[in-house]
Amino acid sequence: MNVRLVLEYDGTLFAGWQAQAGRRTVEGEIRAALRALTGIDHVVHGAGRTDAGAHALGQVASFRYQGRLAPDRLRTGLNALLPEDIAVVGADVAPDDFHARYSARWRRYRYRWLDRPDRPALHRNQCWHVRRTLDLDAMRAAVPSLVGAHDWTTFCSASEPPASRVREMRIATVERNCRFVELELVGEGFLRGQVRGIAGALTEVGGGRQPPGWVADILTARDRARTPKTAPARGLTLVEVLYEDPSPPP
Amino acid sequence: MNVRLVLEYDGTLFAGWQAQAGRRTVEGEIRAALRALTGIDHVVHGAGRTDAGAHALGQVASFRYQGRLAPDRLRTGLNALLPEDIAVVGADVAPDDFHARYSARWRRYRYRWLDRPDRPALHRNQCWHVRRTLDLDAMRAAVPSLVGAHDWTTFCSASEPPASRVREMRIATVERNCRFVELELVGEGFLRGQVRGIAGALTEVGGGRQPPGWVADILTARDRARTPKTAPARGLTLVEVLYEDPSPPP
Repeated sequence: MNVRLVLEYDGTLFAGWQAQAGRRTVEGEIRAALRALTGIDHVVHGAGRTDAGAHALGQVASFRYQGRLAPDRLRTGLNALLPEDIAVVGADVAPDDFHARYSARWRRYRYRWLDRPDRPALHRNQCWHVRRTLDLDAMRAAVPSLVGAHDWTTFCSASEPPASRVREMRIATVERNCRFVELELVGEGFLRGQVRGIAGALTEVGGGRQPPGWVADILTARDRARTPKTAPARGLTLVEVLYEDPSPPP
Repeated sequence: MNVRLVLEYDGTLFAGWQAQAGRRTVEGEIRAALRALTGIDHVVHGAGRTDAGAHALGQVASFRYQGRLAPDRLRTGLNALLPEDIAVVGADVAPDDFHARYSARWRRYRYRWLDRPDRPALHRNQCWHVRRTLDLDAMRAAVPSLVGAHDWTTFCSASEPPASRVREMRIATVERNCRFVELELVGEGFLRGQVRGIAGALTEVGGGRQPPGWVADILTARDRARTPKTAPARGLTLVEVLYEDPSPPP
């Protein structure tokens, strides 16, 4: 039975999604819980390999389930076994050819800043603190250049194969939400480091150190020598993974 | 010099505001930081004595400062010394007769629920998880009965002196905010247990176990035998303390 899980996690105490020997990872905890339930090792596919410290409200994982529980019981069983910083918030039987990563059409990420002189105490691991007030108008002037199909060489990790750095961005918006500034990105796929690279660039614009047009300049330059400082992972949340086209941008 | 601080804290790992021997408290940490800065013990007054596990975005504290730093330097110095779950977000010189607690006119508290079948992972210490979807219409029908001057005997702790349980509530609203349900209360003063008692009662109404009118019934009964189950402190945040009248209800 091919099973799809929707997962929420607080990434603060994880070395990211992907299983690594001797490290506490989200994938590792899911596999340990499946092993405890069934006595069998499962291969688990995640839709997005979130970084150490990054969070998820709607990560999706799929695997060939070797046990006998119906999805609802599996969800309850996993939630009883998983540590408190991971929760299963959805479970269903997926078509045989469903793969959390390869079947995904769009991913929605949120990057969150707290822009004020004093460091945060509450939600300190869920935002990037910058001391200067961010200029939202400037950030908003910069983000339309991100929409469309682009080669993301400037923003992604050098480890990404150069031949596959073109991805389509569907939505890019910046809003103030209570005390936070939030960047929302919906794209067909994100390369390693891409969202944090974009957030780093927008921080330069929002802080007045670069003009809005600079984001388009460095994007079209496709030059890692022009890569901005990467924003820290704790501001990043994988909000949802879409397996159909999203509604049009607002 | 009489100094006023505005404080943010994540209450998860504190035994509340008030200093207690051998316990980690917010007041205790503030006093320890002032001692480290000045070598002198300070008596610190907090506007609201938040419970263990409850949070603050805008707690106010006042004290006769025995050091020589100007308020801005004091704020920076305290933020360097305080643990990461407390931050000073405001500091100024207050009039000589200013007292964080006795001068306060109104306090704004927020209580936050997450209402869904699965337990939360992200923000799990900043909300109360209830499995059933809360009926906002019912909760909204209940809250107007809280507004005005009332004797809060039904909702407050038995330790509050019976002769001083009358307090005015100015604003009481319930909204859905992203995935959370939020109760906002603005009152001239809150008795021990009052907000969590009100939140507990509204949970009964939102869960369909009591009709909206039941809140007014138990309030006017002034009978602790009718006290609802208290909501856990982790859903509670002291948002701000007002020293003048707030703007009228929206």
